[in-house]
Amino acid sequence: MKIIGVDPALKNTGFAAVEAFDNTVNFPDIISFTGKYLKILETGVIKSSAKDSLEYRVLKIFNEISVLIEKYSPDKLVIEKLYSHYNHPTTAILMGHARGVILLAAEIAKVKVISLSATKVKKSVTGRGNASKLQINRMVKHIFKKNNISDSYDITDSLALVLASINLNSKNLQNKIKNKL
Amino acid sequence: MKIIGVDPALKNTGFAAVEAFDNTVNFPDIISFTGKYLKILETGVIKSSAKDSLEYRVLKIFNEISVLIEKYSPDKLVIEKLYSHYNHPTTAILMGHARGVILLAAEIAKVKVISLSATKVKKSVTGRGNASKLQINRMVKHIFKKNNISDSYDITDSLALVLASINLNSKNLQNKIKNKL
Repeated sequence: MKIIGVDPALKNTGFAAVEAFDNTVNFPDIISFTGKYLKILETGVIKSSAKDSLEYRVLKIFNEISVLIEKYSPDKLVIEKLYSHYNHPTTAILMGHARGVILLAAEIAKVKVISLSATKVKKSVTGRGNASKLQINRMVKHIFKKNNISDSYDITDSLALVLASINLNSKNLQNKIKNKL
Repeated sequence: MKIIGVDPALKNTGFAAVEAFDNTVNFPDIISFTGKYLKILETGVIKSSAKDSLEYRVLKIFNEISVLIEKYSPDKLVIEKLYSHYNHPTTAILMGHARGVILLAAEIAKVKVISLSATKVKKSVTGRGNASKLQINRMVKHIFKKNNISDSYDITDSLALVLASINLNSKNLQNKIKNKL
Protein backbone atom coordinates (compact mmCIF):
# COMPACT_ATOMS: atom_id res chain seq x y z
CA MET A 1 0.00 0.00 0.00
CA LYS A 2 1.26 3.45 -0.93
CA ILE A 3 0.37 6.52 1.11
CA ILE A 4 1.09 10.17 0.44
CA GLY A 5 1.07 12.59 3.37
CA VAL A 6 0.65 16.26 2.54
CA ASP A 7 1.15 19.24 4.84
CA PRO A 8 -0.47 22.07 2.88
CA ALA A 9 0.59 25.70 2.95
CA LEU A 10 0.69 28.27 0.20
CA LYS A 11 4.42 28.96 0.63
CA ASN A 12 5.78 25.50 1.52
CA THR A 13 3.68 22.38 0.99
CA GLY A 14 5.49 19.37 2.44
CA PHE A 15 4.85 15.90 1.10
CA ALA A 16 5.99 12.34 1.78
CA ALA A 17 5.28 9.24 -0.31
CA VAL A 18 5.66 6.03 1.69
CA GLU A 19 5.13 2.37 0.80
CA ALA A 20 3.86 0.04 3.55
CA PHE A 21 4.40 -3.72 3.27
CA ASP A 22 2.84 -6.43 5.40
CA ASN A 23 6.08 -8.45 5.35
CA THR A 24 9.73 -7.51 5.25
CA VAL A 25 10.97 -7.24 1.72
CA ASN A 26 14.36 -7.09 0.16
CA PHE A 27 14.73 -3.34 0.01
CA PRO A 28 17.22 -1.22 1.85
CA ASP A 29 16.03 1.40 4.36
CA ILE A 30 12.97 -0.55 5.47
CA ILE A 31 11.75 0.18 8.98
CA SER A 32 9.15 -1.66 11.01
CA PHE A 33 6.22 0.27 12.50
CA THR A 34 3.11 -1.15 14.22
CA GLY A 35 3.26 -4.40 12.26
CA LYS A 36 4.04 -2.81 8.91
CA TYR A 37 7.33 -2.41 7.07
CA LEU A 38 7.80 1.06 5.66
CA LYS A 39 9.91 2.51 2.92
CA ILE A 40 10.11 6.19 2.11
CA LEU A 41 9.70 6.60 -1.65
CA GLU A 42 10.11 10.36 -1.82
CA THR A 43 9.83 13.46 0.34
CA GLY A 44 9.92 17.08 -0.67
CA VAL A 45 8.59 20.59 -0.35
CA ILE A 46 6.60 22.40 -3.04
CA LYS A 47 7.66 26.02 -2.78
CA SER A 48 5.84 28.98 -4.25
CA SER A 49 6.92 32.58 -4.23
CA ALA A 50 4.89 35.51 -2.88
CA LYS A 51 6.11 37.39 -5.96
CA ASP A 52 3.87 35.21 -8.14
CA SER A 53 0.10 35.62 -8.46
CA LEU A 54 -2.09 33.50 -6.21
CA GLU A 55 -3.56 31.79 -9.28
CA TYR A 56 -0.10 30.81 -10.50
CA ARG A 57 0.84 29.52 -7.04
CA VAL A 58 -2.23 27.27 -6.72
CA LEU A 59 -1.57 25.95 -10.25
CA LYS A 60 2.02 25.08 -9.25
CA ILE A 61 0.84 23.19 -6.14
CA PHE A 62 -1.94 21.43 -8.10
CA ASN A 63 0.47 20.38 -10.87
CA GLU A 64 3.16 19.06 -8.52
CA ILE A 65 0.67 17.08 -6.39
CA SER A 66 -0.94 15.70 -9.56
CA VAL A 67 2.47 14.58 -10.88
CA LEU A 68 3.25 12.95 -7.51
CA ILE A 69 -0.08 11.08 -7.54
CA GLU A 70 0.51 9.95 -11.11
CA LYS A 71 4.04 8.80 -10.25
CA TYR A 72 3.09 6.62 -7.26
CA SER A 73 -0.65 5.84 -7.71
CA PRO A 74 -1.15 6.00 -3.94
CA ASP A 75 -4.01 4.21 -2.17
CA LYS A 76 -4.51 7.15 0.18
CA LEU A 77 -3.65 10.80 0.55
CA VAL A 78 -3.46 11.86 4.20
CA ILE A 79 -3.91 15.50 5.12
CA GLU A 80 -4.51 17.45 8.32
CA LYS A 81 -8.12 18.08 9.27
CA LEU A 82 -9.25 21.69 9.55
CA TYR A 83 -9.69 23.11 13.01
CA SER A 84 -11.56 26.21 14.05
CA HIS A 85 -8.94 28.38 15.72
CA TYR A 86 -5.96 29.53 13.75
CA ASN A 87 -3.48 32.06 15.08
CA HIS A 88 -3.12 33.70 11.69
CA PRO A 89 -6.50 33.87 9.90
CA THR A 90 -5.13 35.22 6.60
CA THR A 91 -2.44 32.52 6.45
CA ALA A 92 -5.17 29.95 7.21
CA ILE A 93 -7.32 31.21 4.32
CA LEU A 94 -4.31 31.04 1.98
CA MET A 95 -3.59 27.52 3.31
CA GLY A 96 -7.25 26.82 2.40
CA HIS A 97 -6.47 27.78 -1.22
CA ALA A 98 -3.57 25.28 -1.26
CA ARG A 99 -5.57 22.58 0.55
CA GLY A 100 -8.47 23.04 -1.90
CA VAL A 101 -6.35 22.33 -4.98
CA ILE A 102 -4.60 19.38 -3.24
CA LEU A 103 -7.99 17.79 -2.45
CA LEU A 104 -9.02 18.50 -6.04
CA ALA A 105 -5.93 16.72 -7.41
CA ALA A 106 -6.73 13.68 -5.23
CA GLU A 107 -10.42 13.65 -6.21
CA ILE A 108 -9.65 13.95 -9.94
CA ALA A 109 -7.26 10.97 -9.63
CA LYS A 110 -9.85 9.11 -7.47
CA VAL A 111 -7.40 8.78 -4.58
CA LYS A 112 -9.06 8.34 -1.19
CA VAL A 113 -8.49 11.30 1.16
CA ILE A 114 -7.99 10.73 4.88
CA SER A 115 -8.27 13.82 7.10
CA LEU A 116 -6.69 13.49 10.54
CA SER A 117 -6.82 16.05 13.32
CA ALA A 118 -3.48 17.56 14.37
CA THR A 119 -4.06 16.22 17.89
CA LYS A 120 -4.60 12.68 16.63
CA VAL A 121 -1.44 12.84 14.51
CA LYS A 122 0.67 14.19 17.37
CA LYS A 123 -0.71 11.65 19.83
CA SER A 124 -0.30 8.81 17.39
CA VAL A 125 3.34 9.59 16.65
CA THR A 126 4.68 10.97 19.95
CA GLY A 127 2.07 9.77 22.48
CA ARG A 128 1.21 13.40 23.29
CA GLY A 129 -1.60 15.35 21.61
CA ASN A 130 0.14 18.67 22.24
CA ALA A 131 3.62 17.73 20.99
CA SER A 132 5.64 20.48 19.34
CA LYS A 133 6.80 20.36 15.74
CA LEU A 134 10.34 19.75 17.01
CA GLN A 135 9.18 16.75 19.07
CA ILE A 136 7.38 15.35 16.02
CA ASN A 137 10.49 15.96 13.94
CA ARG A 138 12.67 14.05 16.42
CA MET A 139 10.22 11.18 16.81
CA VAL A 140 9.76 10.79 13.04
CA LYS A 141 13.54 10.69 12.59
CA HIS A 142 13.80 8.19 15.44
CA ILE A 143 11.10 5.93 13.92
CA PHE A 144 12.74 5.97 10.50
CA LYS A 145 16.17 5.35 12.03
CA LYS A 146 17.62 7.59 9.39
CA ASN A 147 19.92 10.51 9.71
CA ASN A 148 19.23 11.61 6.18
CA ILE A 149 15.63 12.61 6.85
CA SER A 150 15.24 16.32 6.31
CA ASP A 151 15.20 18.73 9.23
CA SER A 152 12.29 20.44 7.50
CA TYR A 153 9.16 20.38 9.65
CA ASP A 154 7.13 20.42 6.42
CA ILE A 155 8.58 17.02 5.58
CA THR A 156 8.53 15.45 9.05
CA ASP A 157 4.93 16.68 9.52
CA SER A 158 4.02 14.92 6.25
CA LEU A 159 5.74 11.72 7.40
CA ALA A 160 3.90 12.02 10.74
CA LEU A 161 0.58 12.12 8.84
CA VAL A 162 1.51 8.89 7.05
CA LEU A 163 2.63 7.21 10.30
CA ALA A 164 -0.56 8.28 12.09
CA SER A 165 -2.76 6.92 9.30
CA ILE A 166 -0.95 3.55 9.48
CA ASN A 167 -1.12 3.52 13.28
CA LEU A 168 -4.83 4.38 13.37
CA ASN A 169 -5.54 1.89 10.60
CA SER A 170 -3.82 -0.91 12.53
CA LYS A 171 -5.74 0.11 15.71
CA ASN A 172 -9.03 0.03 13.79
CA LEU A 173 -8.10 -3.40 12.48
CA GLN A 174 -7.28 -4.61 16.00
CA ASN A 175 -10.63 -3.28 17.23
CA LYS A 176 -12.44 -5.06 14.40
CA ILE A 177 -10.68 -8.35 15.24
CA LYS A 178 -11.45 -7.85 18.96
CA ASN A 179 -15.12 -7.21 18.20
CA LYS A 180 -15.30 -10.40 16.16
CA LEU A 181 -13.77 -12.58 18.91
CA MET B 1 -15.29 41.90 -23.96
CA LYS B 2 -16.67 39.13 -21.77
CA ILE B 3 -16.30 39.20 -18.00
CA ILE B 4 -17.20 36.57 -15.44
CA GLY B 5 -17.76 37.68 -11.84
CA VAL B 6 -17.50 34.99 -9.17
CA ASP B 7 -18.52 35.22 -5.51
CA PRO B 8 -16.85 32.14 -4.01
CA ALA B 9 -18.18 30.10 -1.10
CA LEU B 10 -18.10 26.40 -0.46
CA LYS B 11 -21.88 26.10 -0.17
CA ASN B 12 -23.10 28.65 -2.75
CA THR B 13 -20.73 30.08 -5.34
CA GLY B 14 -22.48 32.81 -7.29
CA PHE B 15 -21.42 33.69 -10.81
CA ALA B 16 -22.38 36.12 -13.57
CA ALA B 17 -21.16 36.16 -17.17
CA VAL B 18 -21.57 39.55 -18.82
CA GLU B 19 -20.65 40.88 -22.25
CA ALA B 20 -19.60 44.52 -22.54
CA PHE B 21 -19.83 46.33 -25.88
CA ASP B 22 -18.38 49.73 -26.77
CA ASN B 23 -21.41 50.54 -28.91
CA THR B 24 -25.08 49.65 -28.69
CA VAL B 25 -25.82 46.48 -30.53
CA ASN B 26 -28.95 44.85 -31.74
CA PHE B 27 -29.58 42.63 -28.74
CA PRO B 28 -32.49 42.84 -26.36
CA ASP B 29 -31.83 43.57 -22.65
CA ILE B 30 -28.84 45.79 -23.26
CA ILE B 31 -28.17 48.41 -20.57
CA SER B 32 -25.72 51.28 -20.65
CA PHE B 33 -23.19 51.67 -17.84
CA THR B 34 -20.24 54.11 -17.66
CA GLY B 35 -19.87 54.28 -21.44
CA LYS B 36 -20.31 50.54 -22.03
CA TYR B 37 -23.33 48.55 -23.15
CA LEU B 38 -23.86 45.44 -21.09
CA LYS B 39 -25.69 42.21 -21.67
CA ILE B 40 -26.04 39.48 -19.06
CA LEU B 41 -25.15 36.17 -20.70
CA GLU B 42 -25.82 33.93 -17.71
CA THR B 43 -26.06 34.03 -13.95
CA GLY B 44 -26.28 31.18 -11.50
CA VAL B 45 -25.26 29.62 -8.22
CA ILE B 46 -23.07 26.51 -7.90
CA LYS B 47 -24.43 24.67 -4.89
CA SER B 48 -22.65 21.95 -2.97
CA SER B 49 -23.97 19.89 -0.10
CA ALA B 50 -22.35 19.53 3.32
CA LYS B 51 -23.27 15.84 3.06
CA ASP B 52 -20.60 15.41 0.38
CA SER B 53 -16.88 15.20 1.06
CA LEU B 54 -14.85 18.39 0.83
CA GLU B 55 -12.86 16.89 -2.06
CA TYR B 56 -16.06 16.17 -4.01
CA ARG B 57 -17.35 19.68 -3.33
CA VAL B 58 -14.20 21.42 -4.62
CA LEU B 59 -14.28 19.17 -7.71
CA LYS B 60 -17.88 20.22 -8.40
CA ILE B 61 -17.01 23.93 -8.12
CA PHE B 62 -13.87 23.48 -10.26
CA ASN B 63 -15.78 21.59 -12.97
CA GLU B 64 -18.66 24.07 -13.16
CA ILE B 65 -16.37 27.10 -13.31
CA SER B 66 -14.23 25.35 -15.95
CA VAL B 67 -17.34 24.63 -18.07
CA LEU B 68 -18.44 28.27 -17.69
CA ILE B 69 -15.01 29.52 -18.80
CA GLU B 70 -15.01 27.14 -21.77
CA LYS B 71 -18.54 28.23 -22.74
CA TYR B 72 -17.85 31.98 -22.80
CA SER B 73 -14.04 32.32 -23.18
CA PRO B 74 -14.07 35.39 -20.93
CA ASP B 75 -11.36 38.06 -21.09
CA LYS B 76 -11.40 38.43 -17.30
CA LEU B 77 -12.57 36.66 -14.20
CA VAL B 78 -13.34 39.09 -11.38
CA ILE B 79 -13.28 37.89 -7.78
CA GLU B 80 -13.27 39.53 -4.37
CA LYS B 81 -9.88 40.23 -2.82
CA LEU B 82 -9.08 38.54 0.49
CA TYR B 83 -9.22 40.67 3.58
CA SER B 84 -7.75 39.99 6.98
CA HIS B 85 -10.72 39.98 9.32
CA TYR B 86 -13.47 37.47 8.79
CA ASN B 87 -16.30 36.99 11.27
CA HIS B 88 -16.29 33.23 10.78
CA PRO B 89 -12.72 31.91 10.41
CA THR B 90 -13.74 28.31 9.57
CA THR B 91 -16.17 29.48 6.87
CA ALA B 92 -13.40 31.73 5.54
CA ILE B 93 -10.97 28.79 5.31
CA LEU B 94 -13.60 26.72 3.49
CA MET B 95 -14.23 29.71 1.18
CA GLY B 96 -10.43 29.60 0.62
CA HIS B 97 -10.79 26.02 -0.66
CA ALA B 98 -13.47 27.15 -3.14
CA ARG B 99 -11.54 30.28 -4.14
CA GLY B 100 -8.38 28.20 -4.68
CA VAL B 101 -10.01 25.89 -7.22
CA ILE B 102 -11.74 28.84 -8.97
CA LEU B 103 -8.38 30.63 -9.40
CA LEU B 104 -6.93 27.32 -10.61
CA ALA B 105 -9.67 26.95 -13.25
CA ALA B 106 -8.94 30.49 -14.49
CA GLU B 107 -5.17 29.97 -14.53
CA ILE B 108 -5.44 26.64 -16.41
CA ALA B 109 -7.63 28.37 -19.04
CA LYS B 110 -5.23 31.38 -19.07
CA VAL B 111 -8.01 33.78 -18.12
CA LYS B 112 -6.82 36.98 -16.43
CA VAL B 113 -7.91 37.24 -12.79
CA ILE B 114 -8.87 40.62 -11.32
CA SER B 115 -9.14 40.78 -7.52
CA LEU B 116 -11.12 43.70 -6.16
CA SER B 117 -11.58 44.61 -2.51
CA ALA B 118 -15.13 44.41 -1.15
CA THR B 119 -14.95 48.12 -0.28
CA LYS B 120 -13.97 49.05 -3.83
CA VAL B 121 -16.81 46.97 -5.28
CA LYS B 122 -19.40 48.46 -2.91
CA LYS B 123 -18.18 52.00 -3.50
CA SER B 124 -18.03 51.51 -7.24
CA VAL B 125 -21.60 50.19 -7.48
CA THR B 126 -23.46 52.08 -4.74
CA GLY B 127 -21.16 55.03 -4.01
CA ARG B 128 -20.66 53.78 -0.46
CA GLY B 129 -17.82 51.51 0.66
CA ASN B 130 -19.87 50.09 3.52
CA ALA B 131 -23.08 49.32 1.58
CA SER B 132 -25.05 46.26 2.71
CA LYS B 133 -25.68 43.24 0.51
CA LEU B 134 -29.31 44.38 0.20
CA GLN B 135 -28.22 47.83 -1.00
CA ILE B 136 -25.92 46.20 -3.58
CA ASN B 137 -28.76 43.90 -4.61
CA ARG B 138 -31.10 46.86 -5.17
CA MET B 139 -28.52 48.94 -7.01
CA VAL B 140 -27.53 46.06 -9.30
CA LYS B 141 -31.20 45.47 -10.16
CA HIS B 142 -31.65 49.19 -10.73
CA ILE B 143 -28.61 49.37 -13.03
CA PHE B 144 -29.75 46.39 -15.08
CA LYS B 145 -33.31 47.76 -15.25
CA LYS B 146 -34.53 44.20 -15.04
CA ASN B 147 -37.05 42.71 -12.74
CA ASN B 148 -35.99 39.21 -13.60
CA ILE B 149 -32.59 39.48 -11.90
CA SER B 150 -32.43 36.99 -9.06
CA ASP B 151 -32.96 38.12 -5.48
CA SER B 152 -29.96 35.94 -4.59
CA TYR B 153 -27.16 37.99 -3.07
CA ASP B 154 -24.72 35.43 -4.50
CA ILE B 155 -25.79 36.51 -7.98
CA THR B 156 -26.10 40.26 -7.40
CA ASP B 157 -22.70 40.24 -5.63
CA SER B 158 -21.23 38.55 -8.73
CA LEU B 159 -22.85 41.13 -11.00
CA ALA B 160 -21.51 43.88 -8.70
CA LEU B 161 -17.98 42.50 -9.20
CA VAL B 162 -18.42 42.73 -12.97
CA LEU B 163 -19.84 46.27 -12.77
CA ALA B 164 -17.02 47.40 -10.48
CA SER B 165 -14.36 46.00 -12.82
CA ILE B 166 -15.93 47.88 -15.76
CA ASN B 167 -16.27 51.06 -13.73
CA LEU B 168 -12.69 50.94 -12.45
CA ASN B 169 -11.42 50.09 -15.92
CA SER B 170 -13.19 53.09 -17.43
CA LYS B 171 -11.81 55.31 -14.63
CA ASN B 172 -8.30 54.01 -15.26
CA LEU B 173 -8.79 54.73 -18.95
CA GLN B 174 -10.01 58.26 -18.17
CA ASN B 175 -6.96 58.82 -15.95
CA LYS B 176 -4.64 57.58 -18.70
CA ILE B 177 -6.24 59.95 -21.22
CA LYS B 178 -6.02 62.83 -18.71
CA ASN B 179 -2.35 62.12 -18.06
CA LYS B 180 -1.64 62.18 -21.79
CA LEU B 181 -3.32 65.57 -22.33
